[in-house]
Amino acid sequence: MNNKAIVIYSGGVDSTTLLYHVRRESFDLLALSFDYGQKHKRELESAKVVTSHLGIDHRIIDIKSIMGLFSDSALVSPEIEIPEGEYTPESLRSTIVPNRNMIMLSIAAAFAIGEKINHLFYGAHAGDHEVYPDCRPEFVKALAEALQLCDWSPVMLQAPFVRMTKTQIVEHGAIELGVPYVYTYSCYKGGRYHCGKCSTCVERQRAFKEAGVNDPTIYRREE
Amino acid sequence: MNNKAIVIYSGGVDSTTLLYHVRRESFDLLALSFDYGQKHKRELESAKVVTSHLGIDHRIIDIKSIMGLFSDSALVSPEIEIPEGEYTPESLRSTIVPNRNMIMLSIAAAFAIGEKINHLFYGAHAGDHEVYPDCRPEFVKALAEALQLCDWSPVMLQAPFVRMTKTQIVEHGAIELGVPYVYTYSCYKGGRYHCGKCSTCVERQRAFKEAGVNDPTIYRREE
Repeated sequence: MNNKAIVIYSGGVDSTTLLYHVRRESFDLLALSFDYGQKHKRELESAKVVTSHLGIDHRIIDIKSIMGLFSDSALVSPEIEIPEGEYTPESLRSTIVPNRNMIMLSIAAAFAIGEKINHLFYGAHAGDHEVYPDCRPEFVKALAEALQLCDWSPVMLQAPFVRMTKTQIVEHGAIELGVPYVYTYSCYKGGRYHCGKCSTCVERQRAFKEAGVNDPTIYRREE
Repeated sequence: MNNKAIVIYSGGVDSTTLLYHVRRESFDLLALSFDYGQKHKRELESAKVVTSHLGIDHRIIDIKSIMGLFSDSALVSPEIEIPEGEYTPESLRSTIVPNRNMIMLSIAAAFAIGEKINHLFYGAHAGDHEVYPDCRPEFVKALAEALQLCDWSPVMLQAPFVRMTKTQIVEHGAIELGVPYVYTYSCYKGGRYHCGKCSTCVERQRAFKEAGVNDPTIYRREE
């Protein structure tokens, strides 16, 4: 085994913090993003900016053709509005693409096997557990076991933030890692600036506030 | 939970036997095939013939764009010849698409979740263990646990042939289930008739011979 690692990277707060966190462990990093037809494709531009700032390899895998099969989610369907306001179980459920994490992680693992990379990181965290079943620690554990067995050379999956809240992640990132959050992007609406109203924007604002960290995000001004 | 089941279905000997096996358990079936750019796409025609003969729903999911990323395998690369003769670890390895089963199963699970289907079957069997790590019983067990947790309603993965050899599968299919093997297709070369020379053809011939079952396969005559 070598010291190479893949980080599943969306360009948002959690996975950017993860990128800085794993980088500090002196892994040789490759950041892997997915274009799954998300409305907030704008996040991939942020991913480009951050990886180029860090001088890290960045690849985008196009899985639009697969995700197009599961078009019920507001994240990809043009017919369904992104919900606004605080996350509620109902509003968040409309942003679920079924089994999204396992699909992405299995493709990332195939990529890792091809590139002879043994370590794979993703940014599942505690805030997501209630609505995203595939962010729960027990799911991560079971999938990690499967990934160790899917090839002769094990793929080691780690989700170091799986028991941390978004507030704790921001605290860790801002204070210990110096993550430049101004470059990250979270808004599900996908505009140039954060809308400040959708559930991810609301969650992002709250995390900075609770962490007592200055929020560098540029929110769209009302006309 | 209902009595609906998805069978991952290639049109070959193992998964056709599985289709008949699961059908006998009185599940309401949907057969799911994958077009991953395999040279032996001819197998999908066989899948159509068998499912229409049985009056079973059949869907083909196109994952060519994903598998195109992993073009080292002789199964999909136009530049690599399909090996002939008995399977050897070396010849078989050239037919491996990394993590193929987990990718297909995670997409099948997403499909199952969308259709509210709880049971998912696939035809991993003992003959494949030595070369395909993702056909090992321990892999199936770990992945089954992950699939139970990937959504709020569990996806129950079963691979009833995981400890059976191909010979035992043919015995079971021919004697107990009356599987019409003449409609099934195995050849990796993908011609109209089986070539009789590639490793899957050789394996297929051996299974019928060892099972003491008449081999109804039409092999290509030498010119």
